[in-house]
Amino acid sequence: MNPVAATSKGSATRELIVECAYGIARRNGLEGLSIGELANTVGMSKSGVFAHFGSREDLQLSVLESAAQRFADAVMRPALAQPRGLPRLRAIASGWFDWVLSNQEGCVIMSAAREYDGRPGPMRERTVDWLTQLNALLAKAVGHCIESGELSADTDPELMAFELAALADGLQNSCLQDPVRADALARRSFERLIRSYSP
Amino acid sequence: MNPVAATSKGSATRELIVECAYGIARRNGLEGLSIGELANTVGMSKSGVFAHFGSREDLQLSVLESAAQRFADAVMRPALAQPRGLPRLRAIASGWFDWVLSNQEGCVIMSAAREYDGRPGPMRERTVDWLTQLNALLAKAVGHCIESGELSADTDPELMAFELAALADGLQNSCLQDPVRADALARRSFERLIRSYSP
Repeated sequence: MNPVAATSKGSATRELIVECAYGIARRNGLEGLSIGELANTVGMSKSGVFAHFGSREDLQLSVLESAAQRFADAVMRPALAQPRGLPRLRAIASGWFDWVLSNQEGCVIMSAAREYDGRPGPMRERTVDWLTQLNALLAKAVGHCIESGELSADTDPELMAFELAALADGLQNSCLQDPVRADALARRSFERLIRSYSP
Repeated sequence: MNPVAATSKGSATRELIVECAYGIARRNGLEGLSIGELANTVGMSKSGVFAHFGSREDLQLSVLESAAQRFADAVMRPALAQPRGLPRLRAIASGWFDWVLSNQEGCVIMSAAREYDGRPGPMRERTVDWLTQLNALLAKAVGHCIESGELSADTDPELMAFELAALADGLQNSCLQDPVRADALARRSFERLIRSYSP
């Protein structure tokens, strides 16, 4: 096999492992990721799995990266295709609520925030980076609504970004009780929030 | 030793184990609770720890119960001592935000919501019970504010309870980035929420 084909096969196997690990982490969290269970699922030996990742933490980081990519593809990319201003802000919120609803068994990134809040290291750092970037994106989207006059000029983008993210966080918790009711409450709260900042 | 003394000693040991386990679970979550680490911390053998709990799940349930008790003592009991209406609602929110701030390394109950969302069983059921009771308490406190005329008559207690809980959930996540800023944002958001429901 030539080196290019070998690399491409290795990369495909790595992707398959991350894909399976992502499925396990959705249910059990990144700390609940057992290499034994993962190896069984992909039909490899434990050492076969480790050959593709330097350590369990490398694997966990790759799964977190994959989760961030999925969130970007499902929520942010479609929203950024919407015109700046309220249409984009609505698309972010709606896409994010949809994401929470389709990850009721556990959103890998939101779970990571709880798993690593007390554990310093690369996993916590990567999670904080993600939250920081998301917050900046939200504040920017709010800023566009202020510029366009769709939201009041004295809106604080940082404050509204916090309130928006809080609704998605609240939805994730409330889904444990009743997802349909929780979804309806989150969307009504979002409309109230928009109204509260209307010019 | 007479049976009463034996029982009381057993109960004290059990409490000590739960206390230590609570400390570990704050950092590592209830699923990160290792009986080996716990036994080391309390200076007992693993079988000594198990003698006080039928299973790891029994221990986890006891730790979750202990966390719920601490939350009740720190947040709800002082708030319920306040007069019905806005003073009590403010005390709940403020106490809850303080709780989040003092559990930045991880709130055992909030982490449980993420750990068990994808894992059916007694741990998930107990977490959902807790969230449901908390929600009912919040909605009741909002109801008192409507009765007293401090909040608008068309306030939906269920919706406002969702929004209040969301602020605490959002604060927990934002604390990972900057706790001081997050606390200030949560408190400003709470004031905005109260104003948005003012008569």
